[in-house]
Amino acid sequence: MSVYTPVSEVELDGWLRNYSVGRLTACEPIKAGIENTNYFVTTTQGRYVLTLFERLPAEELPFYLHLMAHLARHGIPCPAPIADLSDQYLGSLNGKPAALVTRLSGGSLEKPEAAHCEELGALLGRMHLAGRSYSAYLENPRGPKWWRFAAREVRSFLNKKEVEMVDAELQYQAEQRFPDLPRGPVHADLFRDNALWDGPRISGVVDFYFAGVDCLLYDIAVCVNDWCLEEGGAALDPGRTRALLAGCQSVRPFTALEQAAWPAMLRAAALRFWLSRLHDFHLPRPGMLVHAHDPEHFRRVLESRVAVPTPWIA
Amino acid sequence: MSVYTPVSEVELDGWLRNYSVGRLTACEPIKAGIENTNYFVTTTQGRYVLTLFERLPAEELPFYLHLMAHLARHGIPCPAPIADLSDQYLGSLNGKPAALVTRLSGGSLEKPEAAHCEELGALLGRMHLAGRSYSAYLENPRGPKWWRFAAREVRSFLNKKEVEMVDAELQYQAEQRFPDLPRGPVHADLFRDNALWDGPRISGVVDFYFAGVDCLLYDIAVCVNDWCLEEGGAALDPGRTRALLAGCQSVRPFTALEQAAWPAMLRAAALRFWLSRLHDFHLPRPGMLVHAHDPEHFRRVLESRVAVPTPWIA
Repeated sequence: MSVYTPVSEVELDGWLRNYSVGRLTACEPIKAGIENTNYFVTTTQGRYVLTLFERLPAEELPFYLHLMAHLARHGIPCPAPIADLSDQYLGSLNGKPAALVTRLSGGSLEKPEAAHCEELGALLGRMHLAGRSYSAYLENPRGPKWWRFAAREVRSFLNKKEVEMVDAELQYQAEQRFPDLPRGPVHADLFRDNALWDGPRISGVVDFYFAGVDCLLYDIAVCVNDWCLEEGGAALDPGRTRALLAGCQSVRPFTALEQAAWPAMLRAAALRFWLSRLHDFHLPRPGMLVHAHDPEHFRRVLESRVAVPTPWIA
Repeated sequence: MSVYTPVSEVELDGWLRNYSVGRLTACEPIKAGIENTNYFVTTTQGRYVLTLFERLPAEELPFYLHLMAHLARHGIPCPAPIADLSDQYLGSLNGKPAALVTRLSGGSLEKPEAAHCEELGALLGRMHLAGRSYSAYLENPRGPKWWRFAAREVRSFLNKKEVEMVDAELQYQAEQRFPDLPRGPVHADLFRDNALWDGPRISGVVDFYFAGVDCLLYDIAVCVNDWCLEEGGAALDPGRTRALLAGCQSVRPFTALEQAAWPAMLRAAALRFWLSRLHDFHLPRPGMLVHAHDPEHFRRVLESRVAVPTPWIA
């Protein structure tokens, strides 16, 4: 479980007096999640998630919270931060930066079908368009600079073939230049477990704490590398991939440059998660209470993207 | 019915492309309401209310929309305006200023009990505290200045006894001074039909288009004069009145000055609605499609407040 900072009901009830959400009726720790301490909080007014930020740099938190607020007021189904009586989203509880956000209903899907992928693609398109009027800036904290940092850190844990593969991919990506691709705030971690569904519709997109400004196409590549995999494999399922891209396209047509950049972007998205999983696996941070994901999965995804150019974007 | 400006599905679907709310799936005119044209709008993303502003002064609209946005992000269950792709709440449709807001679930109550009144009081308290960090200013458009204007306009339609009653009350209110009562944005029209319920909880407070900055106590008086009436009468039911005030008090204790001002405030709230109903009844605006409420009800409410001082606030 991932409750690093315990909060008692008495502490929480007192803290909630800074808000306009009524009185505490229930509080339950959330076991999923690696980075933060999270509680489901129910009050006389509604259902919320309380997050105590354990590791994120304090100066980045306003970017995430105001992005969620921005998207929520554009109709994107994401957690809406609740402002306190001083009109602030970011508070402090038991010595940690803390925020209260709305709790969305729905459950995540393990085996999405093509129609789900199309719905996700359309939501990504809407989220990207809505995000373009967001004025704050934070460079994607898991972008190319971070890849090079992580590669140095994990190097000594890799076998010779893996080192060659990382080096070759970093070299390949360094030769790619995407100055003219549409950019904006991206979620950058919209895996299946970060989308909630109510029947055929997405009722929530959660966990914006890897968001940053990057190519919009990168966000799509992150999704395709998770939502569109062949069952149990690393190759892409053509039907679901086409459906996800068609969903995006129905809201925001791809530019010619995006079409050209697509294979490289899928590789970049695979590299980023291979490196972060290697890092979490070999260099777990002190106090990290959750088992790291196996890095091997994303090594195979990267290998597959390098071996099989993907012609679907159009 | 009150659809002054028709909007076709084709027009609406095109207009919604300015938003991040998905594609139109259904659209239904709303028959209640006097001031504006309203539609229930359903999209692939959610349920909304579209309002075309028919009569409100354009310069007042940002105050209302940003107040709703402010309260919604503080957790108050009120319609949240949706920002368009230019990040604006106020748009234009078929030549009218127009806004899209979230549609809240729940239904209104005709016969509230004491527990409902207590819940309403607590919500008013929370709304008032949340509103105090709202920085925009609009003087209550139906405040004392407007009473005097309306009294002059309807004078010739009143009988002698009514003229004397209006004059006496205007004189009495002119002698009251409340410079030190807590003030802030108030709803100012939170009648039973403007609150939606989901079981014992308020799931929505709607119709903020009479809001303005005034004494918080005035907002409470408006509610008590509607929610706490004896059945079929104009006198106050002591149990429900005490419950509503106890709900307020649990969130924001009344000051001594508020306790002293309470009887006068109940009279002010009764006078305001008597005058507006007289005005709507005798001087309906051209094109007004809804039958005006009978003014006589609020004449009796005012008469009752003058005759029976109310000792319940404490």
